[in-house]
Amino acid sequence: MTPAARTAIEHSDIIIGYKTYLDLIDELLAGKEVVASQMMKEVDRCGRAIELAAAGETVALVCGGDPGIYAMAGLVFEMLRSRDLAVAVEVIPGIAALNACAARLGAPLMHDFAAISLSDLLTPWEVIEKRVRAAAAADFVLVIYNPRSRRRVEQLVKTRDIVMAVRGPRTPVGIVTGAARENERVELTTLEQLTECEVGMQSTVIIGNSQTCCWRNLMITPRGYAGKYAV
Amino acid sequence: MTPAARTAIEHSDIIIGYKTYLDLIDELLAGKEVVASQMMKEVDRCGRAIELAAAGETVALVCGGDPGIYAMAGLVFEMLRSRDLAVAVEVIPGIAALNACAARLGAPLMHDFAAISLSDLLTPWEVIEKRVRAAAAADFVLVIYNPRSRRRVEQLVKTRDIVMAVRGPRTPVGIVTGAARENERVELTTLEQLTECEVGMQSTVIIGNSQTCCWRNLMITPRGYAGKYAV
Repeated sequence: MTPAARTAIEHSDIIIGYKTYLDLIDELLAGKEVVASQMMKEVDRCGRAIELAAAGETVALVCGGDPGIYAMAGLVFEMLRSRDLAVAVEVIPGIAALNACAARLGAPLMHDFAAISLSDLLTPWEVIEKRVRAAAAADFVLVIYNPRSRRRVEQLVKTRDIVMAVRGPRTPVGIVTGAARENERVELTTLEQLTECEVGMQSTVIIGNSQTCCWRNLMITPRGYAGKYAV
Repeated sequence: MTPAARTAIEHSDIIIGYKTYLDLIDELLAGKEVVASQMMKEVDRCGRAIELAAAGETVALVCGGDPGIYAMAGLVFEMLRSRDLAVAVEVIPGIAALNACAARLGAPLMHDFAAISLSDLLTPWEVIEKRVRAAAAADFVLVIYNPRSRRRVEQLVKTRDIVMAVRGPRTPVGIVTGAARENERVELTTLEQLTECEVGMQSTVIIGNSQTCCWRNLMITPRGYAGKYAV
């Protein structure tokens, strides 16, 4: 958590968030009004935060990672817009899954990359597949959000097959599960082996580009210095 | 700066970095050996850090943003690999330009996005252009790193033209210059107007996808909740 996020929570009267995340910041919640909700209740949570803020309260809406990357910031603004409500909102950036997972794996994001969510809950699979194909063909590193859930397993297999057809089976792949949490697990594998690895709701998968290599259990995408300077 | 980064600096004996960044953390440097270098000396800086670490020193190599996103982590590992040196390295993730700029603009990164550097110093323009075309065609939000420098101005014009041919002239574009610094400047514009805006070495440009809209000086890319739930 950044000092800016901590300060915002300290200066708020009401803290709203998914229970699992609020449990992680327990020591900051003393004396605050706390509204903890269950998973998948994003719309309720944002609606409550907006309602209280519009009534004049100072509210902190807490989420994991970075609220600006596939997270709550957008829903807050969408809901404010649909109500045409002028509530002052400050988005405080955080360490997103892509930042944390890249750091754990070595340096896979040293060159152009595409972030793609495989969840087809809010996006048709055709759109997602088109993006996977485009990113694979243009040699982007891929950062895969929501790669697999209990009920949704085929999307990762299809993604693997699309990229493997372009980049080959030995392309390095990193899987980070529960980044920066107690249960953190880091696995380095290949496109070929990816579908046999443990990947779940808390995992982020990074697929290397054509230049990405592995060295001493690290995943490294060269920036191109070696071609220009003696390194 | 995250608490983890601060702790790492506190626990290091030698701090190495580009002078401009070291000036920002002046209060952490008392009693440390400091190696400040000029811009464009990344290879020298990393080489010195590796040399000292290999000799048993605890060294912090400081950079702006996130060392794992287009930054120093990769060069460190590339140089260790070319020397086959087993020095323990911890990459501490930070708030990258894409995190900070998205937060300042509202919520542009709520859906799939591609990060592309327009610098052709280490990458041939043909590769960059191919990526811009692919990202434009597949409706990714684009995060443009190194959009323009004094000597390099054509790449942003070409990028604008490629995306505009697919998405239309009114597509929202956000420009953040000097994010989270004293000279921070945030500008919301359109693809059509982009080339008339002030964009420099410290700027990051975010180009919306086909669904991105502007509301009250904010840039919002819908996640898709509105199609699924009443928001």
